[in-house]
Amino acid sequence: MSKFNDSENKIVMPANTMLNPVPAIMVSCSHKDFNEGRPNIITIAWAGTICSDPPMLSISIRKSRLSHEIVSASGEFVVNLVSRNLLKACDFCGVRSGRDYDKFQECHLTSIPADSLSSAPAIAESPVSISCKVAGVYELGAHDLFMARIESVTVNAELMDEKGRLCLENAELVAYSHGHYYELGDVLGFFGYSVASPKALKRRLDEMNRNHKKKSG
Amino acid sequence: MSKFNDSENKIVMPANTMLNPVPAIMVSCSHKDFNEGRPNIITIAWAGTICSDPPMLSISIRKSRLSHEIVSASGEFVVNLVSRNLLKACDFCGVRSGRDYDKFQECHLTSIPADSLSSAPAIAESPVSISCKVAGVYELGAHDLFMARIESVTVNAELMDEKGRLCLENAELVAYSHGHYYELGDVLGFFGYSVASPKALKRRLDEMNRNHKKKSG
Repeated sequence: MSKFNDSENKIVMPANTMLNPVPAIMVSCSHKDFNEGRPNIITIAWAGTICSDPPMLSISIRKSRLSHEIVSASGEFVVNLVSRNLLKACDFCGVRSGRDYDKFQECHLTSIPADSLSSAPAIAESPVSISCKVAGVYELGAHDLFMARIESVTVNAELMDEKGRLCLENAELVAYSHGHYYELGDVLGFFGYSVASPKALKRRLDEMNRNHKKKSG
Repeated sequence: MSKFNDSENKIVMPANTMLNPVPAIMVSCSHKDFNEGRPNIITIAWAGTICSDPPMLSISIRKSRLSHEIVSASGEFVVNLVSRNLLKACDFCGVRSGRDYDKFQECHLTSIPADSLSSAPAIAESPVSISCKVAGVYELGAHDLFMARIESVTVNAELMDEKGRLCLENAELVAYSHGHYYELGDVLGFFGYSVASPKALKRRLDEMNRNHKKKSG
Protein backbone atom coordinates (compact mmCIF):
# COMPACT_ATOMS: atom_id res chain seq x y z
CA MET A 1 0.00 0.00 0.00
CA SER A 2 1.07 3.58 -0.59
CA LYS A 3 2.69 5.66 2.09
CA PHE A 4 1.00 8.50 3.85
CA ASN A 5 2.35 11.83 4.89
CA ASP A 6 1.33 11.87 8.48
CA SER A 7 0.30 15.24 9.71
CA GLU A 8 2.32 16.36 12.71
CA ASN A 9 -0.07 19.15 13.52
CA LYS A 10 -2.84 17.89 15.73
CA ILE A 11 -5.27 19.85 17.85
CA VAL A 12 -7.06 18.37 20.87
CA MET A 13 -10.68 19.41 21.40
CA PRO A 14 -13.00 18.72 24.33
CA ALA A 15 -15.22 15.65 24.10
CA ASN A 16 -18.05 16.03 21.62
CA THR A 17 -20.16 13.89 19.29
CA MET A 18 -17.71 13.77 16.39
CA LEU A 19 -18.47 10.41 14.78
CA ASN A 20 -19.19 11.23 11.12
CA PRO A 21 -20.82 10.63 8.70
CA VAL A 22 -23.93 9.15 10.31
CA PRO A 23 -27.32 8.16 8.91
CA ALA A 24 -30.20 10.64 8.81
CA ILE A 25 -33.37 8.63 9.26
CA MET A 26 -37.05 9.28 9.86
CA VAL A 27 -38.49 7.20 12.67
CA SER A 28 -42.26 6.74 12.57
CA CYS A 29 -44.30 5.64 15.56
CA SER A 30 -47.80 5.71 16.97
CA HIS A 31 -49.74 4.83 20.11
CA LYS A 32 -53.42 5.24 20.89
CA ASP A 33 -52.75 7.18 24.12
CA PHE A 34 -50.76 9.98 22.45
CA ASN A 35 -52.04 12.69 20.10
CA GLU A 36 -55.33 10.84 19.70
CA GLY A 37 -53.46 7.99 18.04
CA ARG A 38 -52.08 10.16 15.24
CA PRO A 39 -48.71 8.84 14.04
CA ASN A 40 -45.58 10.89 14.60
CA ILE A 41 -42.20 11.17 12.90
CA ILE A 42 -38.90 12.03 14.56
CA THR A 43 -35.66 12.55 12.65
CA ILE A 44 -32.69 10.85 14.21
CA ALA A 45 -28.96 10.85 13.46
CA TRP A 46 -27.94 9.04 16.64
CA ALA A 47 -28.64 5.61 15.18
CA GLY A 48 -26.61 2.58 14.16
CA THR A 49 -26.61 -1.10 13.40
CA ILE A 50 -25.59 -2.95 16.57
CA CYS A 51 -25.78 -6.65 15.69
CA SER A 52 -25.86 -8.80 12.53
CA ASP A 53 -27.44 -11.93 14.00
CA PRO A 54 -30.08 -11.31 15.18
CA PRO A 55 -30.30 -8.17 13.03
CA MET A 56 -30.54 -5.25 15.46
CA LEU A 57 -30.21 -1.48 15.40
CA SER A 58 -30.35 1.26 17.96
CA ILE A 59 -31.79 4.76 18.04
CA SER A 60 -31.20 7.31 20.77
CA ILE A 61 -34.03 9.66 21.73
CA ARG A 62 -34.07 12.59 24.15
CA LYS A 63 -36.33 11.96 27.14
CA SER A 64 -38.24 15.19 26.43
CA ARG A 65 -39.39 14.12 22.98
CA LEU A 66 -42.94 13.03 22.21
CA SER A 67 -41.55 10.06 20.28
CA HIS A 68 -39.73 8.93 23.43
CA GLU A 69 -43.11 8.55 25.13
CA ILE A 70 -44.73 6.89 22.12
CA VAL A 71 -41.96 4.36 21.51
CA SER A 72 -41.70 3.60 25.24
CA ALA A 73 -45.44 2.89 25.35
CA SER A 74 -45.74 0.95 22.09
CA GLY A 75 -42.37 -0.85 22.03
CA GLU A 76 -42.31 -0.41 18.25
CA PHE A 77 -40.97 1.93 15.62
CA VAL A 78 -40.09 2.05 11.94
CA VAL A 79 -36.77 3.35 10.63
CA ASN A 80 -37.45 4.97 7.25
CA LEU A 81 -34.35 5.64 5.14
CA VAL A 82 -34.16 9.10 3.62
CA SER A 83 -33.77 9.66 -0.10
CA ARG A 84 -32.93 13.01 -1.61
CA ASN A 85 -36.56 13.93 -2.31
CA LEU A 86 -37.48 13.27 1.34
CA LEU A 87 -34.71 15.44 2.79
CA LYS A 88 -36.69 18.61 3.38
CA ALA A 89 -39.36 16.64 5.24
CA CYS A 90 -36.61 14.82 7.15
CA ASP A 91 -35.08 18.10 8.30
CA PHE A 92 -38.49 19.52 9.23
CA CYS A 93 -39.29 16.47 11.38
CA GLY A 94 -36.01 17.05 13.22
CA VAL A 95 -36.69 20.66 14.19
CA ARG A 96 -40.41 20.62 14.94
CA SER A 97 -42.35 18.72 17.60
CA GLY A 98 -45.20 16.31 17.06
CA ARG A 99 -46.89 18.12 19.97
CA ASP A 100 -47.30 21.18 17.71
CA TYR A 101 -47.57 19.65 14.24
CA ASP A 102 -49.14 16.67 12.52
CA LYS A 103 -45.94 15.92 10.66
CA PHE A 104 -47.43 13.47 8.16
CA GLN A 105 -49.96 16.11 7.12
CA GLU A 106 -47.52 19.02 7.23
CA CYS A 107 -45.00 17.18 5.02
CA HIS A 108 -47.62 15.60 2.72
CA LEU A 109 -46.46 12.13 3.68
CA THR A 110 -48.52 8.96 3.70
CA SER A 111 -48.79 6.73 6.75
CA ILE A 112 -49.13 3.06 5.80
CA PRO A 113 -49.26 -0.09 7.96
CA ALA A 114 -45.79 -1.45 8.65
CA ASP A 115 -45.05 -5.13 8.13
CA SER A 116 -44.72 -7.18 11.37
CA LEU A 117 -45.90 -4.34 13.66
CA SER A 118 -49.25 -3.55 15.23
CA SER A 119 -49.15 0.19 15.91
CA ALA A 120 -46.12 1.95 14.33
CA PRO A 121 -46.76 2.95 10.70
CA ALA A 122 -44.24 3.24 7.86
CA ILE A 123 -43.77 6.26 5.61
CA ALA A 124 -44.95 5.24 2.12
CA GLU A 125 -42.61 7.72 0.39
CA SER A 126 -39.47 6.25 1.96
CA PRO A 127 -37.59 3.80 -0.29
CA VAL A 128 -36.77 1.46 2.63
CA SER A 129 -38.72 0.99 5.88
CA ILE A 130 -37.28 -1.16 8.65
CA SER A 131 -39.81 -2.58 11.12
CA CYS A 132 -38.34 -2.68 14.64
CA LYS A 133 -39.40 -3.97 18.06
CA VAL A 134 -37.71 -2.59 21.16
CA ALA A 135 -35.55 -5.21 22.92
CA GLY A 136 -34.11 -2.99 25.65
CA VAL A 137 -33.72 0.61 26.76
CA TYR A 138 -30.59 2.04 28.33
CA GLU A 139 -30.54 5.42 30.10
CA LEU A 140 -27.35 7.25 29.21
CA GLY A 141 -27.90 10.94 29.99
CA ALA A 142 -29.48 13.41 27.59
CA HIS A 143 -30.51 10.46 25.44
CA ASP A 144 -31.93 7.02 26.09
CA LEU A 145 -30.66 4.22 23.88
CA PHE A 146 -33.42 2.05 22.39
CA MET A 147 -31.99 -1.27 21.21
CA ALA A 148 -34.32 -3.02 18.79
CA ARG A 149 -34.76 -6.24 16.86
CA ILE A 150 -35.30 -5.75 13.14
CA GLU A 151 -38.45 -7.72 12.27
CA SER A 152 -38.54 -7.18 8.49
CA VAL A 153 -37.56 -4.72 5.80
CA THR A 154 -39.93 -3.23 3.22
CA VAL A 155 -38.46 -1.75 0.03
CA ASN A 156 -39.75 -0.09 -3.11
CA ALA A 157 -40.13 -2.70 -5.86
CA GLU A 158 -38.35 -0.39 -8.33
CA LEU A 159 -35.11 -0.86 -6.34
CA MET A 160 -34.97 -4.54 -7.25
CA ASP A 161 -33.17 -5.59 -10.44
CA GLU A 162 -34.31 -8.34 -12.82
CA LYS A 163 -32.41 -10.90 -10.74
CA GLY A 164 -34.21 -9.88 -7.54
CA ARG A 165 -31.19 -8.10 -6.05
CA LEU A 166 -31.68 -4.91 -4.08
CA CYS A 167 -29.91 -2.00 -5.85
CA LEU A 168 -29.79 0.39 -2.90
CA GLU A 169 -27.40 2.63 -4.84
CA ASN A 170 -30.46 3.79 -6.80
CA ALA A 171 -32.28 5.03 -3.69
CA GLU A 172 -30.32 8.32 -3.56
CA LEU A 173 -29.80 8.04 0.19
CA VAL A 174 -28.58 10.98 2.22
CA ALA A 175 -25.76 11.08 4.79
CA TYR A 176 -25.39 13.54 7.67
CA SER A 177 -22.01 14.90 8.71
CA HIS A 178 -21.24 17.64 11.23
CA GLY A 179 -24.50 19.53 10.70
CA HIS A 180 -24.71 19.12 6.92
CA TYR A 181 -26.67 16.73 4.72
CA TYR A 182 -24.80 15.21 1.77
CA GLU A 183 -25.73 13.12 -1.22
CA LEU A 184 -23.68 9.96 -1.63
CA GLY A 185 -21.16 10.76 -4.38
CA ASP A 186 -18.91 8.49 -6.40
CA VAL A 187 -18.44 4.86 -5.41
CA LEU A 188 -14.89 4.50 -4.10
CA GLY A 189 -14.82 0.76 -3.49
CA PHE A 190 -16.67 -2.23 -2.17
CA PHE A 191 -16.16 -4.32 0.96
CA GLY A 192 -13.04 -6.42 0.33
CA TYR A 193 -11.78 -4.40 -2.65
CA SER A 194 -8.34 -3.91 -1.05
CA VAL A 195 -7.58 -7.61 -1.47
CA ALA A 196 -9.36 -8.18 -4.82
CA SER A 197 -7.36 -8.91 -8.00
CA PRO A 198 -6.70 -5.79 -10.17
CA LYS A 199 -8.89 -7.18 -12.94
CA ALA A 200 -11.86 -7.99 -10.68
CA LEU A 201 -11.41 -4.62 -9.01
CA LYS A 202 -11.61 -2.58 -12.22
CA ARG A 203 -14.61 -4.53 -13.50
CA ARG A 204 -16.61 -4.11 -10.29
CA LEU A 205 -15.79 -0.42 -9.79
CA ASP A 206 -16.69 0.42 -13.41
CA GLU A 207 -19.94 -1.50 -13.04
CA MET A 208 -20.86 0.20 -9.75
CA ASN A 209 -20.19 3.70 -10.99
CA ARG A 210 -22.19 3.00 -14.15
CA ASN A 211 -25.19 1.82 -12.10
CA HIS A 212 -24.88 4.69 -9.65
CA LYS A 213 -24.72 7.36 -12.38
CA LYS A 214 -27.50 5.82 -14.46
CA LYS A 215 -30.00 6.85 -11.82
CA SER A 216 -28.50 10.05 -10.44
CA GLY A 217 -28.26 11.56 -13.89
CA MET B 1 -43.84 21.35 1.07
CA SER B 2 -44.15 19.60 -2.27
CA LYS B 3 -46.22 16.48 -2.74
CA PHE B 4 -44.74 13.07 -3.24
CA ASN B 5 -45.84 10.30 -5.52
CA ASP B 6 -46.04 7.49 -3.09
CA SER B 7 -44.97 4.20 -4.52
CA GLU B 8 -47.64 1.56 -4.24
CA ASN B 9 -45.25 -1.24 -5.05
CA LYS B 10 -43.55 -2.46 -1.91
CA ILE B 11 -41.68 -5.68 -1.35
CA VAL B 12 -41.19 -7.20 2.11
CA MET B 13 -37.81 -8.81 2.81
CA PRO B 14 -36.69 -10.89 5.81
CA ALA B 15 -34.99 -9.01 8.65
CA ASN B 16 -31.48 -7.85 7.81
CA THR B 17 -29.08 -5.04 8.68
CA MET B 18 -30.46 -2.46 6.27
CA LEU B 19 -29.75 0.83 8.05
CA ASN B 20 -27.78 2.91 5.51
CA PRO B 21 -25.56 4.83 5.03
CA VAL B 22 -23.39 4.15 8.09
CA PRO B 23 -19.92 5.33 9.07
CA ALA B 24 -16.81 3.34 8.09
CA ILE B 25 -14.30 3.85 10.87
CA MET B 26 -10.96 2.43 11.92
CA VAL B 27 -10.81 1.51 15.59
CA SER B 28 -7.32 1.32 17.08
CA CYS B 29 -6.53 -0.47 20.32
CA SER B 30 -3.69 -2.08 22.22
CA HIS B 31 -3.02 -4.11 25.36
CA LYS B 32 0.24 -5.51 26.67
CA ASP B 33 -1.14 -9.06 26.94
CA PHE B 34 -2.05 -9.36 23.25
CA ASN B 35 0.32 -9.60 20.26
CA GLU B 36 3.26 -8.57 22.45
CA GLY B 37 1.63 -5.20 22.98
CA ARG B 38 1.52 -4.34 19.28
CA PRO B 39 -1.43 -2.10 18.47
CA ASN B 40 -4.24 -3.38 16.28
CA ILE B 41 -6.81 -1.82 13.98
CA ILE B 42 -10.31 -3.10 13.26
CA THR B 43 -12.65 -1.57 10.71
CA ILE B 44 -16.19 -1.16 11.94
CA ALA B 45 -19.43 -0.06 10.31
CA TRP B 46 -21.67 -1.08 13.20
CA ALA B 47 -21.06 2.16 15.10
CA GLY B 48 -23.09 5.19 16.09
CA THR B 49 -23.39 8.19 18.36
CA ILE B 50 -25.64 7.19 21.27
CA CYS B 51 -25.73 10.24 23.56
CA SER B 52 -24.97 13.98 23.32
CA ASP B 53 -24.43 14.70 27.01
CA PRO B 54 -22.23 13.04 28.06
CA PRO B 55 -20.89 12.54 24.55
CA MET B 56 -21.00 8.78 23.91
CA LEU B 57 -20.72 6.42 20.98
CA SER B 58 -20.99 2.69 20.50
CA ILE B 59 -19.16 0.13 18.42
CA SER B 60 -20.22 -3.48 17.96
CA ILE B 61 -17.52 -6.15 17.68
CA ARG B 62 -17.82 -9.87 16.97
CA LYS B 63 -16.75 -12.00 19.92
CA SER B 64 -14.25 -13.88 17.73
CA ARG B 65 -12.22 -10.79 16.84
CA LEU B 66 -8.82 -10.03 18.34
CA SER B 67 -9.95 -6.46 18.97
CA HIS B 68 -12.83 -7.77 21.06
CA GLU B 69 -10.26 -9.28 23.43
CA ILE B 70 -8.04 -6.21 23.40
CA VAL B 71 -10.82 -3.69 24.03
CA SER B 72 -12.37 -5.92 26.70
CA ALA B 73 -9.02 -6.09 28.51
CA SER B 74 -7.97 -2.43 28.12
CA GLY B 75 -11.36 -0.71 28.34
CA GLU B 76 -10.16 1.79 25.75
CA PHE B 77 -10.22 2.42 22.02
CA VAL B 78 -9.85 5.19 19.49
CA VAL B 79 -12.33 5.81 16.68
CA ASN B 80 -10.37 7.14 13.69
CA LEU B 81 -12.51 8.72 10.97
CA VAL B 82 -11.69 7.60 7.46
CA SER B 83 -10.77 10.05 4.72
CA ARG B 84 -10.58 9.09 1.06
CA ASN B 85 -6.83 8.47 1.14
CA LEU B 86 -7.24 6.06 4.07
CA LEU B 87 -9.95 3.98 2.44
CA LYS B 88 -7.81 1.16 1.07
CA ALA B 89 -6.20 0.68 4.50
CA CYS B 90 -9.66 0.87 6.07
CA ASP B 91 -10.97 -1.90 3.86
CA PHE B 92 -7.86 -4.02 4.43
CA CYS B 93 -8.26 -3.74 8.22
CA GLY B 94 -11.85 -4.98 7.82
CA VAL B 95 -10.98 -8.17 5.95
CA ARG B 96 -7.72 -9.25 7.61
CA SER B 97 -7.04 -10.27 11.21
CA GLY B 98 -4.55 -8.73 13.60
CA ARG B 99 -3.65 -12.31 14.50
CA ASP B 100 -2.09 -12.69 11.04
CA TYR B 101 -0.94 -9.17 10.20
CA ASP B 102 0.63 -6.16 11.90
CA LYS B 103 -1.90 -3.84 10.33
CA PHE B 104 -0.08 -0.59 11.15
CA GLN B 105 3.02 -1.94 9.39
CA GLU B 106 1.15 -3.56 6.51
CA CYS B 107 -0.79 -0.35 5.77
CA HIS B 108 2.16 2.01 6.42
CA LEU B 109 0.25 3.74 9.18
CA THR B 110 1.69 5.51 12.20
CA SER B 111 0.65 4.67 15.74
CA ILE B 112 0.73 7.74 18.02
CA PRO B 113 -0.31 8.18 21.65
CA ALA B 114 -4.00 9.07 21.95
CA ASP B 115 -5.07 11.97 24.13
CA SER B 116 -6.72 10.97 27.46
CA LEU B 117 -5.92 7.26 27.09
CA SER B 118 -3.16 5.08 28.49
CA SER B 119 -2.92 2.13 26.09
CA ALA B 120 -4.97 2.58 22.91
CA PRO B 121 -3.08 4.54 20.22
CA ALA B 122 -4.46 6.82 17.53
CA ILE B 123 -3.75 6.57 13.80
CA ALA B 124 -1.68 9.65 12.87
CA GLU B 125 -2.93 9.65 9.27
CA SER B 126 -6.60 9.92 10.28
CA PRO B 127 -8.02 13.46 10.15
CA VAL B 128 -10.06 12.96 13.35
CA SER B 129 -9.35 10.58 16.24
CA ILE B 130 -11.92 10.14 19.01
CA SER B 131 -10.54 8.86 22.33
CA CYS B 132 -13.05 6.54 24.03
CA LYS B 133 -13.36 4.71 27.35
CA VAL B 134 -15.72 1.75 27.61
CA ALA B 135 -18.69 2.48 29.89
CA GLY B 136 -20.57 -0.78 29.41
CA VAL B 137 -20.77 -3.89 27.28
CA TYR B 138 -23.99 -5.53 26.15
CA GLU B 139 -24.08 -9.05 24.66
CA LEU B 140 -26.51 -9.12 21.75
CA GLY B 141 -25.70 -12.19 19.67
CA ALA B 142 -23.09 -12.27 16.92
CA HIS B 143 -21.87 -8.89 18.16
CA ASP B 144 -21.25 -7.34 21.56
CA LEU B 145 -22.17 -3.68 21.91
CA PHE B 146 -19.43 -1.56 23.51
CA MET B 147 -20.89 1.69 24.83
CA ALA B 148 -18.20 4.29 25.44
CA ARG B 149 -17.65 7.77 26.82
CA ILE B 150 -15.88 10.13 24.43
CA GLU B 151 -12.95 11.60 26.38
CA SER B 152 -11.57 14.03 23.79
CA VAL B 153 -11.26 14.55 20.05
CA THR B 154 -7.98 15.13 18.18
CA VAL B 155 -8.13 16.74 14.73
CA ASN B 156 -5.68 17.79 12.05
CA ALA B 157 -4.83 21.47 12.48
CA GLU B 158 -5.36 22.04 8.75
CA LEU B 159 -9.08 21.34 9.22
CA MET B 160 -9.48 24.48 11.36
CA ASP B 161 -10.30 27.77 9.65
CA GLU B 162 -8.89 31.17 10.63
CA LYS B 163 -11.71 31.61 13.15
CA GLY B 164 -10.89 28.31 14.87
CA ARG B 165 -13.92 26.49 13.49
CA LEU B 166 -13.63 22.87 12.45
CA CYS B 167 -14.28 22.51 8.70
CA LEU B 168 -14.99 18.79 8.64
CA GLU B 169 -16.27 19.11 5.06
CA ASN B 170 -12.60 19.34 4.03
CA ALA B 171 -11.72 15.97 5.54
CA GLU B 172 -13.09 14.00 2.55
CA LEU B 173 -14.83 11.48 4.80
CA VAL B 174 -16.17 8.24 3.42
CA ALA B 175 -19.62 6.69 3.98
CA TYR B 176 -20.53 2.99 3.75
CA SER B 177 -23.81 1.84 2.28
CA HIS B 178 -24.93 -1.72 1.49
CA GLY B 179 -21.42 -3.03 0.84
CA HIS B 180 -20.09 0.00 -1.04
CA TYR B 181 -17.90 2.89 0.06
CA TYR B 182 -18.93 6.36 -1.17
CA GLU B 183 -17.43 9.81 -1.10
CA LEU B 184 -19.70 12.47 0.35
CA GLY B 185 -21.05 14.35 -2.69
CA ASP B 186 -22.84 17.68 -2.91
CA VAL B 187 -24.13 19.40 0.20
CA LEU B 188 -27.93 19.19 0.10
CA GLY B 189 -28.74 21.21 3.21
CA PHE B 190 -27.88 21.93 6.80
CA PHE B 191 -29.66 21.05 10.04
CA GLY B 192 -32.70 23.36 10.23
CA TYR B 193 -32.64 24.42 6.57
CA SER B 194 -36.27 23.44 6.04
CA VAL B 195 -37.41 26.28 8.29
CA ALA B 196 -34.76 28.87 7.28
CA SER B 197 -35.71 31.99 5.28
CA PRO B 198 -35.18 31.61 1.50
CA LYS B 199 -32.43 34.25 1.56
CA ALA B 200 -30.50 32.68 4.44
CA LEU B 201 -30.96 29.29 2.82
CA LYS B 202 -29.44 30.29 -0.53
CA ARG B 203 -26.51 32.09 1.08
CA ARG B 204 -25.59 29.15 3.32
CA LEU B 205 -25.99 26.47 0.66
CA ASP B 206 -23.85 28.45 -1.82
CA GLU B 207 -21.21 28.96 0.84
CA MET B 208 -21.15 25.31 1.85
CA ASN B 209 -20.86 23.99 -1.69
CA ARG B 210 -18.08 26.49 -2.43
CA ASN B 211 -16.12 25.32 0.61
CA HIS B 212 -16.76 21.67 -0.14
CA LYS B 213 -15.67 21.93 -3.80
CA LYS B 214 -12.63 24.08 -3.04
CA LYS B 215 -11.01 21.05 -1.48
CA SER B 216 -12.47 18.15 -3.42
CA GLY B 217 -12.24 19.75 -6.88
